[in-house]
Amino acid sequence: MHILILGAAGMIGRKLAASLAEDGHRLTLADVVPPPDLPNSTALTLDLTASAAPGLIAGRPDAIIHLAAIVSGEAEADFDKGYATNLDAPRALLEAIRAMPGYVPKLIFASSIAVFGAPFPAKIPDDFFLTPRTSYGTQKAITELLISDYSRRGFIDGLSIRLPTICVRPGKPNLAASGFFSNIIREPLVGKPAVLPVPDTTRHWFASPQSAVGFFRHALTLDTARLGDRRALGMPGLSATVAEEIEALRRVAGQKAVDLITRQPDEKIAKIVSTWPADFETTRASALGFVAETTFDQIIAAHLVAEGAAA
Amino acid sequence: MHILILGAAGMIGRKLAASLAEDGHRLTLADVVPPPDLPNSTALTLDLTASAAPGLIAGRPDAIIHLAAIVSGEAEADFDKGYATNLDAPRALLEAIRAMPGYVPKLIFASSIAVFGAPFPAKIPDDFFLTPRTSYGTQKAITELLISDYSRRGFIDGLSIRLPTICVRPGKPNLAASGFFSNIIREPLVGKPAVLPVPDTTRHWFASPQSAVGFFRHALTLDTARLGDRRALGMPGLSATVAEEIEALRRVAGQKAVDLITRQPDEKIAKIVSTWPADFETTRASALGFVAETTFDQIIAAHLVAEGAAA
Repeated sequence: MHILILGAAGMIGRKLAASLAEDGHRLTLADVVPPPDLPNSTALTLDLTASAAPGLIAGRPDAIIHLAAIVSGEAEADFDKGYATNLDAPRALLEAIRAMPGYVPKLIFASSIAVFGAPFPAKIPDDFFLTPRTSYGTQKAITELLISDYSRRGFIDGLSIRLPTICVRPGKPNLAASGFFSNIIREPLVGKPAVLPVPDTTRHWFASPQSAVGFFRHALTLDTARLGDRRALGMPGLSATVAEEIEALRRVAGQKAVDLITRQPDEKIAKIVSTWPADFETTRASALGFVAETTFDQIIAAHLVAEGAAA
Repeated sequence: MHILILGAAGMIGRKLAASLAEDGHRLTLADVVPPPDLPNSTALTLDLTASAAPGLIAGRPDAIIHLAAIVSGEAEADFDKGYATNLDAPRALLEAIRAMPGYVPKLIFASSIAVFGAPFPAKIPDDFFLTPRTSYGTQKAITELLISDYSRRGFIDGLSIRLPTICVRPGKPNLAASGFFSNIIREPLVGKPAVLPVPDTTRHWFASPQSAVGFFRHALTLDTARLGDRRALGMPGLSATVAEEIEALRRVAGQKAVDLITRQPDEKIAKIVSTWPADFETTRASALGFVAETTFDQIIAAHLVAEGAAA
């Protein structure tokens, strides 16, 4: 199968590309920074703007995985850049596909739980209404709607998958408001300190990077006829509190690791996090065979496996 | 107040413009066909494409009422035209406004119950999820999302109002799938025959043209701070069956009028209509003071008043 990955140099993109290359797929990998060099793959380093779309699909890939995005904070800070990258670029891709008669690729779009906005029920159902409260969430919700319409019209065979917060994120601590969810696990595991800016009771929605790769792999083989016209799917995840994260850390690495976490309340971060969804019913995705971790111990184990593999 | 109406020559646009002119507002009326000539108003006959947007708002109207659209059937038949008129044109308007520093007009967008798609609960709640199953509904849903985001960001003071099916539509019978809901009232009232293509048990969601005018008038004075970030509002309406329509006709015009209705089942129309929503809870809009008819007798009475006024 020939698979085009847009955003192939990102955290999920690299892992997904490596996994698909291992299975022998032919890959075209595109990103603004150089994508990984893999067997049987073509790497394209280019800005994924609207004008790049026709060139990207000239080779008529069987499937397209669209991971490229400006993240939430940047889309909020730079209105033009957010709409250009997160809406105009995917729309141009859809239009480029529609302009090629007889070409109906599978298109898997990485959407986000940011399509939803507070206030939330305790457990958000699959059919919760679209209420984004960020420009990023708005752009993701609009692209979902386009993907449903282009699929219904027969121009693509599309689906949008709404990813949980990915945890444990590898790499260095970053300043994203959500960074601490990963920091308080990743740093103490290697003997480094980490700051916790929110109460231990804070609940959020997680899946490991490996689960995210699994979602896209499963979506590639999924018979989309089972989706009907409802082409956006909330992915399964684990609803866990910070306290549950810390207990899992204690079980894996002991009190010494837990002692490396410093509680340093930050009202600004706590306020942002309080508007995020904390728990979902993902009945449809589970019935369709998507799976994620069910305990935080599994999420930590997935991180240790990935770090070991990287060492 | 200076009010710009886009789509001012349409059925709702004409009535709304006349009503606002009567109150002494200064109007700019734009449409592809010549808008009505009213006191203290400027009429612009032009194609409401994306490129027309900056010129339309050069006079910095205090409020903009956006009624212009390609209807559902045409948006389905002509994909490009539908997206150009129903998505690119309103988006260009939003962008033109954003490009004018310090200009934050009220913007009232005519959306539609087509943002929802079957299957439906018996009574659709205000927070039912966006599931359009037409390109028209997709375009309306996307524009709603843009209006919410541009409002949240402070570029406009916007709201989207989702109109029920307008009944009794004046004028001649047309071939729209929904036309019969009006035809079976309007035609017999003037002694002419009408065809009923669906079962008497068919239920649908109605408001009179006068109620629609009232929705926009009320939206003009509404303090949108009461909406928070949820800027799309389902308008109140009347849920009624065809049988209830016919009983109301009988009360108003007698059995002689009812006898002018010929039952001529059309499976194709019945199938289309079966996918349409039939009843809504409109708790939010009602609490905000929007009102519509509560009996079909009132809808017929509104029609008779309008026809009398026109004669």
